[in-house]
Amino acid sequence: MIIHSKFKDYEVHMESNFDFLRELSQTPNAEFVIDEKVYGLYKTYFKEIPEERLFLVEATEEHKVIETALAICEKMTEIPAKRNAHLVSVGGGIIQDITGFVANVLYRGIPWTFVPTTLLASCDSCIGGKTSLNYKKYKNLLGTFYPPDALHICPGFFQTLSERDFESGLGEVVKFNIMAGEHGLKNIEDNIDRLLARDEDCLKQFVYSSLEFKKGFIEVDEFDRGERIKLNFAHTFGHAIETVTGYEIPHGTAVAIGMIMANRVAERRGMLDSEIARRSEKVLLRVIHIGIDLNEYPLERFISAMRKDKKQTSEHLTAVLMTNVAKDLKIVHDVQIEEVADARDYFEQLYHAQA
Amino acid sequence: MIIHSKFKDYEVHMESNFDFLRELSQTPNAEFVIDEKVYGLYKTYFKEIPEERLFLVEATEEHKVIETALAICEKMTEIPAKRNAHLVSVGGGIIQDITGFVANVLYRGIPWTFVPTTLLASCDSCIGGKTSLNYKKYKNLLGTFYPPDALHICPGFFQTLSERDFESGLGEVVKFNIMAGEHGLKNIEDNIDRLLARDEDCLKQFVYSSLEFKKGFIEVDEFDRGERIKLNFAHTFGHAIETVTGYEIPHGTAVAIGMIMANRVAERRGMLDSEIARRSEKVLLRVIHIGIDLNEYPLERFISAMRKDKKQTSEHLTAVLMTNVAKDLKIVHDVQIEEVADARDYFEQLYHAQA
Repeated sequence: MIIHSKFKDYEVHMESNFDFLRELSQTPNAEFVIDEKVYGLYKTYFKEIPEERLFLVEATEEHKVIETALAICEKMTEIPAKRNAHLVSVGGGIIQDITGFVANVLYRGIPWTFVPTTLLASCDSCIGGKTSLNYKKYKNLLGTFYPPDALHICPGFFQTLSERDFESGLGEVVKFNIMAGEHGLKNIEDNIDRLLARDEDCLKQFVYSSLEFKKGFIEVDEFDRGERIKLNFAHTFGHAIETVTGYEIPHGTAVAIGMIMANRVAERRGMLDSEIARRSEKVLLRVIHIGIDLNEYPLERFISAMRKDKKQTSEHLTAVLMTNVAKDLKIVHDVQIEEVADARDYFEQLYHAQA
Repeated sequence: MIIHSKFKDYEVHMESNFDFLRELSQTPNAEFVIDEKVYGLYKTYFKEIPEERLFLVEATEEHKVIETALAICEKMTEIPAKRNAHLVSVGGGIIQDITGFVANVLYRGIPWTFVPTTLLASCDSCIGGKTSLNYKKYKNLLGTFYPPDALHICPGFFQTLSERDFESGLGEVVKFNIMAGEHGLKNIEDNIDRLLARDEDCLKQFVYSSLEFKKGFIEVDEFDRGERIKLNFAHTFGHAIETVTGYEIPHGTAVAIGMIMANRVAERRGMLDSEIARRSEKVLLRVIHIGIDLNEYPLERFISAMRKDKKQTSEHLTAVLMTNVAKDLKIVHDVQIEEVADARDYFEQLYHAQA
C-alpha cells in the first residue's frame, strides 16, 4: 500500500515473518530506537545492530517528552551523514510519537523507517504522520505532521501483546471496519472469533482494511483541518474517558466505548438505524473488558474533559457521528450535556447487562 | 505576491507605512511575540495589544533555543482557542526561527503571521518556511519547514537598523539580483546608491525582486532536496566564514564575501565570464565592510567548517557555483582545498586593494 503525503509518498510493507528485521539492521547511517521491552523479546533479530547505534527507550507517557527526543537528536549528531542520517524505530505508538518528532525536527527532517509492534499502532497511528510529545501537565501539547519513509507491519509481534493491549488495538480495528459500511460490519462479525484468537492471516487482512479506510481520509486532508477530522469519530468521548479515568482504560478500548456512546447519540437523533447500532454494539462489546464503573466519575469531569480536547475550537461541544450511509460521518457542534449523560448511562447498562 | 507551499498558500503583503500594525493588534486569540528592541522602538504601534498576550524576546542566538520555544507554547495554552490560537511575531530572523518552530509544534501547527523587521529577514528568510533552534553546541541542529500564513513587509523598519545589519541584508539583496542574470546585475549597479541611502521605494522594489527570485526555487522544492539547494549559492563559503570568525561577521555580509569566493572558483574553472565576475565584485564590495582579516584564521578551520555544514552529505566538499547562464547554478562536489585557499586569498587582496 502506498500512502500519498505532501511530504513524500511512502509504502506500507506487510510482513509475514521477522526476516525483514535483519535487513533493516543493515540500513546505512542509521540510529535504531527501540522499545526496551520489544528489544528484550526480539533480541535475536536485532543482534546485528552496532551497540553504539542502539538507543533503547522505556515506552511510558513519562518518557514521551522533549528531553527524550533531544537525547536521540544529540546522539544522532555522531552519525557523519547529517541530513542523510536514517532513523529506524521499533515499538508502539509512544515510540512512534517520539521518533516521528525527532525525524521531523533533526536537520529539518531526516529519513525515517518505522516498525509498529502493537496492533493499535499497526492498524491506525502508523499512517497519517502525527507525532506528539507531552509537556508538563499537557498531554500531546507538542507535535507535528511527519510521516515515515517506510513502514513494516508484522502481525507476529501481536502474539506477545498483553490481552489488554491486544484488545485495545482490536477496538480500533473493529471501529474502522464498521465505519466502512455494511460490508465491513458483516466482515468483522464473521471474523471476530479468529481475530480474538490472534490468527495472523486474519489480523493482517484486517489491519490492511483498517489502514485502507483511514488512507482515504488522510490523503485528502493531511493536516487535519477538514475531512480528516471525521476520523475523530468516537474519539471525543474516548479521550474524555481516558482523561477522567486517569488513562486506566487503554486508548483503543476507550474509543470502542466512545463508539457505543456516539452511536447512542446518533440513534436518538434519528441519524443511525437501530439495527446497525445493535449489531455494532454486539461486536464492540466482544473487545471491551474494563474493571471500572464510568458512572463513578462525576458527569462534569466528562464534560470538562471533552471541552479541553484540542479539537474543540469553540465553546460548543463538538462530536463526529456515524450515519446510515457508509463513510458519511457528520460533525455536529451542538452535543448536549444531557446526551452525554444518557450515552454514558446507556453504555454502563449495556456493559453490565452482558456480564 | 502569493507563495505556494505544500502546507498552504500564503501572501506577502508589501506595506508602505506602519498602519497595518494597529490592525494586526486586533487579531483574535493571538499571542504577540516581539523582539524587545523592536517593541521599544515602535511601542506606539503596539499599544493596543493586551499586556497578558505580549511576549518579548531578546533576539540573541542564546535565546534561539528550545526553552524559549517551550515558554511561548506554555503561555499560549492560556488562549482558549487551542488549534485556532494565532501567533503573531515581529522581529528579524531569530524571532522568525523561534516562532516558526512554535507555530509548527504547538497543537501540530497553528496559524501564524510574521512581520520581518530586518532587511535580511524581509528579502530572504521570511519565505520558504525554514525554522531553527540551536541546541547545546550545535547551531541550528533543530528545525522544521513551516511557513507563516501571512507576511507583512514594511521597509520603514529598515531605517532603525544599524549600518552593520542593514549592509548584511543588502548582501543578500545584491546576491539574489545578480543571480537573476544580466538584467538583475544591471539593475543593482544602477540602484546601489539609492539602496545604500535607504530609499524606501527602492528597497521595497528590490526586496520584492529578491523574493520573486527565491520563490521560483522554494516552490518547486520546498523541502530542500533538489533545486532549492542551489539557493545555497555562496552559503558554503559564507557559513564557513561565520563559523571561523565566531559570528563576528553578520550573515549577509559573509554571504556577500562567499559569493566573491564562489565566483572566483567558477571563473578559474572557466564556468563564469570575467566581465560578470568583475562587475559583481564591484557592487558586492560596496556592501562589505569588515574589520577582520580572514587570512588570520588557519585554512584547516575553513575546510573543517565547510565539511560540518549540514548540507554536506558526503566526504567531498560541495558548493554551488554561478555560471554565465542566468539562474543556471551548478552543484559541484569536488571543490579542492587549493581552490578554497586561492578564493580566500583573492577576496583578501581585492578587499584591501580598494581601501
